[in-house]
Amino acid sequence: MPAEHAHSHHNHHEQHFQSTETVRDVVIGMSDGLTVPFALAAGLSGAVNSTHLVVLAGLAEIAAGSIAMGLGGYLAAQGDAEHYASERLREEREVVERVRDEEEEIYEIFDAYGVDRDAATPVLEALKRNPPAWVDFMMRFELGLEEPQRGRAAKSASTIAVSYIVGGMIPLLPYMLMASGLDALKVSVVITLLALVVFGGVKGRLTGTGGLRSSLQTVSIGGIAAAAAFGLARLLSAS
Amino acid sequence: MPAEHAHSHHNHHEQHFQSTETVRDVVIGMSDGLTVPFALAAGLSGAVNSTHLVVLAGLAEIAAGSIAMGLGGYLAAQGDAEHYASERLREEREVVERVRDEEEEIYEIFDAYGVDRDAATPVLEALKRNPPAWVDFMMRFELGLEEPQRGRAAKSASTIAVSYIVGGMIPLLPYMLMASGLDALKVSVVITLLALVVFGGVKGRLTGTGGLRSSLQTVSIGGIAAAAAFGLARLLSAS
Repeated sequence: MPAEHAHSHHNHHEQHFQSTETVRDVVIGMSDGLTVPFALAAGLSGAVNSTHLVVLAGLAEIAAGSIAMGLGGYLAAQGDAEHYASERLREEREVVERVRDEEEEIYEIFDAYGVDRDAATPVLEALKRNPPAWVDFMMRFELGLEEPQRGRAAKSASTIAVSYIVGGMIPLLPYMLMASGLDALKVSVVITLLALVVFGGVKGRLTGTGGLRSSLQTVSIGGIAAAAAFGLARLLSAS
Repeated sequence: MPAEHAHSHHNHHEQHFQSTETVRDVVIGMSDGLTVPFALAAGLSGAVNSTHLVVLAGLAEIAAGSIAMGLGGYLAAQGDAEHYASERLREEREVVERVRDEEEEIYEIFDAYGVDRDAATPVLEALKRNPPAWVDFMMRFELGLEEPQRGRAAKSASTIAVSYIVGGMIPLLPYMLMASGLDALKVSVVITLLALVVFGGVKGRLTGTGGLRSSLQTVSIGGIAAAAAFGLARLLSAS
């Protein structure tokens, strides 16, 4: 039964898809969470004497950043789901109401790959006998759209927000626990750069960039962002 | 000539693709840029008396956030391009070295849509006569990958960073220009919420969510993030 095969194939594909998307959400949240609060705290510690103020600004940033990124991720995933649903509805209407146009679109899809009308006709005939499969085919091959998972938006939002908070607390901990701002800055720099190395390495393995190279990339971004924030805050507090 | 048609079709598709991606990058940068520095500044203004400090923290955040998000976008786009190139190389080898397996994959692609082997065979024969088109077909229909544009990474990075900076400067301007922190907070809240309404409206029209609904969403995210940062900073500065 082709329909059953399609279904199991689809499930397999979705499972693969799902873990990739969760990894992507953790990466989105944690790479900014490890970088921005770290850079802000480092920057402020170069301009103000009070660790209390650094912690205050850092926590306010984590609250704002995790909410903004989490809700932003929610809306993005929800938008994808609505876009898919509305395009699917349109295709479902079109394979009934505008059969000739849809047939022509199938020929055009194949023509782009040098497959002529004669060769494409048997595929078209098979799809016409199975309208739901025809709609599936158009969604993927005409529009390039994947069906989003149910509950994706809420899961994406919480994954991004939690990853941001976890990442952001690492650079702030020294400022919370140590009395001297300079000592806290040093410890914060060391543990955050270490965390960026580990995070970059894991991310590189999961995404195929390679561990060492990805580690160097994440450490560089964190270092550059922190140096820029530090330099800017120094400059402004001196003036 | 099918190859030429394919090329012009491809260009048309890419152009559509490009403007969508630029819009997406502006949305990524500006939605966080309008929200996080705004929320941070509002939060700090509830806890410290000096507008100088609010501006300092806000600018440090903008520096850190624009660099982190810009470079993050650069790496993401570069990763996509490398992933596409390596998968393409693999497909190019496989259509030569593992012809039987690749043929079977074509049958599986069609089988998932209820198209049987007999109907799929003419398409397979046509693709086999044109190996570059076969590779194109597998990239899109087996792997679901689009060819990324050249120079995408650098363009994506600068679009995101500039959008973040532009968005982030709006809530900070009142703190730079006004002496009273409370007055600056009020003006910052009003102009930033207005900016979020306009930004949300434009975004909603471009992405198809609808202007009013998208405006409400962006204003809500900004408001919630700012309220959380404000509340947290108040709580911590009182303790």
